[in-house]
Amino acid sequence: MIVMKAEATKAEIDNVVKEIHKYGLKADISHGEFRTVIGLVGDETKIPFSHFAVLPGVKEAFMIETPYKLISKEYGKQFHEVAGRRVIKIGDITIGGDEPVFIAGPCAVESRQQVMRIAEGIKKAGAQVLRGGIFKPRSSVHSFQGLGAVGWEQAEEALSWLREAGDKYDMAVITEVRGETQVDLVAKYVDIMQIGTRNMYDQDLLVSVGRKHKPVLYKRHFGAGIEEFLSFAEYIAAEDNKDIILCERGILPLGKGKNFTRYTFDLSAIPVIEKETYLPVLADPSHATGRRDLIFSMSCAAMAAGACGLMIETHYNPAESLVDSQQMITPEELGEVITAARSIHKLVASARNKE
Amino acid sequence: MIVMKAEATKAEIDNVVKEIHKYGLKADISHGEFRTVIGLVGDETKIPFSHFAVLPGVKEAFMIETPYKLISKEYGKQFHEVAGRRVIKIGDITIGGDEPVFIAGPCAVESRQQVMRIAEGIKKAGAQVLRGGIFKPRSSVHSFQGLGAVGWEQAEEALSWLREAGDKYDMAVITEVRGETQVDLVAKYVDIMQIGTRNMYDQDLLVSVGRKHKPVLYKRHFGAGIEEFLSFAEYIAAEDNKDIILCERGILPLGKGKNFTRYTFDLSAIPVIEKETYLPVLADPSHATGRRDLIFSMSCAAMAAGACGLMIETHYNPAESLVDSQQMITPEELGEVITAARSIHKLVASARNKE
Amino acid sequence: MIVMKAEATKAEIDNVVKEIHKYGLKADISHGEFRTVIGLVGDETKIPFSHFAVLPGVKEAFMIETPYKLISKEYGKQFHEVAGRRVIKIGDITIGGDEPVFIAGPCAVESRQQVMRIAEGIKKAGAQVLRGGIFKPRSSVHSFQGLGAVGWEQAEEALSWLREAGDKYDMAVITEVRGETQVDLVAKYVDIMQIGTRNMYDQDLLVSVGRKHKPVLYKRHFGAGIEEFLSFAEYIAAEDNKDIILCERGILPLGKGKNFTRYTFDLSAIPVIEKETYLPVLADPSHATGRRDLIFSMSCAAMAAGACGLMIETHYNPAESLVDSQQMITPEELGEVITAARSIHKLVASARNKE
Amino acid sequence: MIVMKAEATKAEIDNVVKEIHKYGLKADISHGEFRTVIGLVGDETKIPFSHFAVLPGVKEAFMIETPYKLISKEYGKQFHEVAGRRVIKIGDITIGGDEPVFIAGPCAVESRQQVMRIAEGIKKAGAQVLRGGIFKPRSSVHSFQGLGAVGWEQAEEALSWLREAGDKYDMAVITEVRGETQVDLVAKYVDIMQIGTRNMYDQDLLVSVGRKHKPVLYKRHFGAGIEEFLSFAEYIAAEDNKDIILCERGILPLGKGKNFTRYTFDLSAIPVIEKETYLPVLADPSHATGRRDLIFSMSCAAMAAGACGLMIETHYNPAESLVDSQQMITPEELGEVITAARSIHKLVASARNKE
Repeated sequence: MIVMKAEATKAEIDNVVKEIHKYGLKADISHGEFRTVIGLVGDETKIPFSHFAVLPGVKEAFMIETPYKLISKEYGKQFHEVAGRRVIKIGDITIGGDEPVFIAGPCAVESRQQVMRIAEGIKKAGAQVLRGGIFKPRSSVHSFQGLGAVGWEQAEEALSWLREAGDKYDMAVITEVRGETQVDLVAKYVDIMQIGTRNMYDQDLLVSVGRKHKPVLYKRHFGAGIEEFLSFAEYIAAEDNKDIILCERGILPLGKGKNFTRYTFDLSAIPVIEKETYLPVLADPSHATGRRDLIFSMSCAAMAAGACGLMIETHYNPAESLVDSQQMITPEELGEVITAARSIHKLVASARNKE
Repeated sequence: MIVMKAEATKAEIDNVVKEIHKYGLKADISHGEFRTVIGLVGDETKIPFSHFAVLPGVKEAFMIETPYKLISKEYGKQFHEVAGRRVIKIGDITIGGDEPVFIAGPCAVESRQQVMRIAEGIKKAGAQVLRGGIFKPRSSVHSFQGLGAVGWEQAEEALSWLREAGDKYDMAVITEVRGETQVDLVAKYVDIMQIGTRNMYDQDLLVSVGRKHKPVLYKRHFGAGIEEFLSFAEYIAAEDNKDIILCERGILPLGKGKNFTRYTFDLSAIPVIEKETYLPVLADPSHATGRRDLIFSMSCAAMAAGACGLMIETHYNPAESLVDSQQMITPEELGEVITAARSIHKLVASARNKE
Repeated sequence: MIVMKAEATKAEIDNVVKEIHKYGLKADISHGEFRTVIGLVGDETKIPFSHFAVLPGVKEAFMIETPYKLISKEYGKQFHEVAGRRVIKIGDITIGGDEPVFIAGPCAVESRQQVMRIAEGIKKAGAQVLRGGIFKPRSSVHSFQGLGAVGWEQAEEALSWLREAGDKYDMAVITEVRGETQVDLVAKYVDIMQIGTRNMYDQDLLVSVGRKHKPVLYKRHFGAGIEEFLSFAEYIAAEDNKDIILCERGILPLGKGKNFTRYTFDLSAIPVIEKETYLPVLADPSHATGRRDLIFSMSCAAMAAGACGLMIETHYNPAESLVDSQQMITPEELGEVITAARSIHKLVASARNKE
Repeated sequence: MIVMKAEATKAEIDNVVKEIHKYGLKADISHGEFRTVIGLVGDETKIPFSHFAVLPGVKEAFMIETPYKLISKEYGKQFHEVAGRRVIKIGDITIGGDEPVFIAGPCAVESRQQVMRIAEGIKKAGAQVLRGGIFKPRSSVHSFQGLGAVGWEQAEEALSWLREAGDKYDMAVITEVRGETQVDLVAKYVDIMQIGTRNMYDQDLLVSVGRKHKPVLYKRHFGAGIEEFLSFAEYIAAEDNKDIILCERGILPLGKGKNFTRYTFDLSAIPVIEKETYLPVLADPSHATGRRDLIFSMSCAAMAAGACGLMIETHYNPAESLVDSQQMITPEELGEVITAARSIHKLVASARNKE
């Protein structure tokens, strides 16, 4: 990492970048309020930091020890104003700021009518972002794969319903992108691109999505340690896209016998990631638990652990849903969750500030 | 399970028990406010329930499907007054009732002075139960094993310090019992006997402890699924001891790379166990995270998930502690945790009641 | 699954397929030596099997219970001659037949000279297939990503070296394809396309690769259960490509403390998969253990467990390798492994035949 | 570790021990063929090794870095003659020597007739040690707990059957000891005391068993890492008992969906432990797989990985067994396993010797 002086000129910055290229690495330039910081993409051990430290305009030059340098707390505090945290803005919505964010909607987009009706319900309940799956990752080729599997036309139509519902009810819109060939189409319609748990390791997809320079919701794989999760998030960041929302959605359950939840909700990952990076961390209790009757408790727990918000699958009639019906809640139930979540967010934030 | 009529006589109950013995099973008799319920210890498939259903004084007779019958919700709701939940009383302290309970103290008892000073601190912070390890389970024979390892006299002396501190500051007292030969001695001094994570599967110890008919704090093994945890708790319950506090303290971490916490705090285990059994569930963020700087967040999260209380390692000078110094907090920090935990407990309880 | 009579005509088969389409499913047609079998892609519960059973030319029609129908033992034994097992042929090489197959080569292709020299060495040692990574999946964006990351031209050049070496030393050639955009290029040069552990869940990639109708080496994800592994393999099979070699390469290690191996080599997966499917199962001791000094033992163990062959990273000078140097063995060591592996394969096969 | 000179006198050894005691540690004295080695039990960091190095009769004094010092390769090679490996002798049987050892018998002892008949069968099949459970560890208090649960008399009677059968058919005898109170009784009757997977962490039991100075078969817990397993084995070794046979019997399965085996057989643990310690490693395919149809394959695999022998549950009529009937094989099948296992043992040993 090369920290430039506040008064460094563009020429001095360009010169540092040129020097970095000489060593075969790429430069990641982040302009903060007070100064510019230059991260390195590639093998830092090749870099003679003492040489860089004395270049014109350079304040400091040193190595970051973690494999996730560009999203690290250490790097971020150089250019993020408030407490070294990134606040992502989409219109009036802020993610990672003082107010929590709530993403809701059906597992899969099934029809225009379904999307519009759910959008209305979740807006009333207090959600700010509408979700809906079009390219569905499924464990079985024999299951319903979402409207995206029917053909490009249907995929685009489904995307347009999401957009329309978002616009009508003044919400941002998010959907999952599962393969590289879907990136261009999805980027045209949504505000946030989601990379799902099963694609966490798909580095070519991460690069493609990163290059769209739109906010990305990036879910941890259910078999991934935190270090690995952050190291792969770095693939997005290295494409000069730091608007990454990290999402905890449960890891593999442990132990013999019946599993009472789909996954193990790893809530301590939330404060851990907040100490390691400057990125906001969201939680998805729907996929973590897979159980409607646990959504309230585990939403509260996630907010208490410090989540910046929640993503919750919602449907006006869960039993009707083609996918994941046992983990859906209704918009009314969502309203109760959001109310409790807001109170806990406030309580925890104020207790933290007192610290 | 045999549910007796409200008006069933002692003779009728005795007769049912006699019939049960005929089939080679043991009877577990639970007298509730309104009726008596008789559980079965042994292989229920041998029991002709239709025969039992028509015995005098019997209201209903049927099989409970889970392997943890005697602690199951289904069994407990027959004889527990409030919402089918067990409230354990130790003097003025209630565990599993309306108020949360806080257990604190050092990892290991080191001296009378240490115990008294910590007791004073945690009492002021709001704790109701004092903990302190005397028989320490350790991964290495080469590490400090607690004063219990020095000899029986030192063990008894250390136990007397705990008792003295509890009496002086009006707190209940808990310590871990690690082997069968320690049970008698420990039972003489403490109010709650703890069975630690490494002894969860030690069925001979469970039976010995169960027979003391004192409240037991029973910790989940870090490799145990919930079904297994509850099935082993049944060994205690089958000794006619239902005063069992189940404790979530973290399971094995998953994934490659650095572990940022000692264990994975499995918070959804809390509402799951509360749905499966009538027993209170406590959480231990100290061992789950192993990190002082995560205790506040994860204590709040555990309370939000529905824990009946917390167990937190506390020391006036963490750095001085012979064991687990990196996960200890001070009594002052404990006070802040307890304040936040109480608020969340209240908030979540009232939201639940509204439901 | 619809089993046709031996004498069924093309018209009768076409008629069954037409009927299947009416219910919104796709047909998977497999012509065996004695009869034709038609599998179903999609939700079988929509199919009235009794209706299909009486169509002209149909012998039997019934549902396969597993989520991996098209690769199941049950389906395969209808059209595979020898013991319901698939033997994949690439020139003179057979995979899954009487003779074991050995795949060897460097982790990453680094230069023409390196590939040629290693090819010569492994050929002498007894290998039949040459491997070499061009598009390298890496945990860190800051690490060497293979020559594929330099540009398309370099990727193609590296592929041509592999092909050249394969042709010169009369070996088949395999490399990993990591993203959809690489599929066309890779398919032009290699005999077997590899899908790596981190891409196991990447269903869009599976479909793309499946459509090339070339043999696929498909590696289990390190966090995947066997059922999930087979369910995802079905995505390849559903593209009318049954030439799938399944590969066990280790799963996440368990337990606290130091990991002595990179992964846990799950050898019982080998006989389990051989009982569940008709596909050959290969083992990769290099990635499973990550340790040169364990390759011999664990290669022998994998063969004893019933593997059809091994994939082993080999380099004339392991220390020189840019990637995975600590798990490489030399061609000489490979020769010893192959000799022992052949003996064990023979011993186990003959003992099995006696059974 | 203090390595004494070959010519060190008893007085010199006693003096070193006295010095060790001064620092509050215990001494572990191992007399080898050529020299005496003194290990340390306790916190080695308190020991001034340079002071010890110059005491009369001392050749070398240094710290062993692992937490399992007394069973480490480094310690053992000072006093074990052949390749730093311990060979345990019970009458004519050697464990860890040139010939593999086979332990077989029923899961639970049910009657004298059952034990005698099985003993005859397994002897004929080639087994050298007879196993049979009397104190059965069970997940459910409602299941059959072995004859040991009926009462002490029945336990002793069952033990006498085992002894009688062992004597009659000239086999050594092993059974599991589950709690401290059972140690004296069991030690009177058997040649090898078994500590089961669920008791791996029960340090008070380990100490009690260690003090009997009989060979111990010590099974890895299904949730334990290798480092932890070895660290707990050290509790036995610290009681001056190094006749420990370590046993791999499967760890927790990973991943979503159906488990095809009871546990994951971690075969690379075998060569790893053989590199870390001087103790023999046995494998238990019965509990690892839980499937009769996998015993042959996985027995072969375990031997190929370097196991010193196998423990296999055997019954003349598996369906009749009260416990674990689905994983039992018949004595005839055992014979086939033993034949194949011997061949593989020989093949692997000779290939290793060539190395």
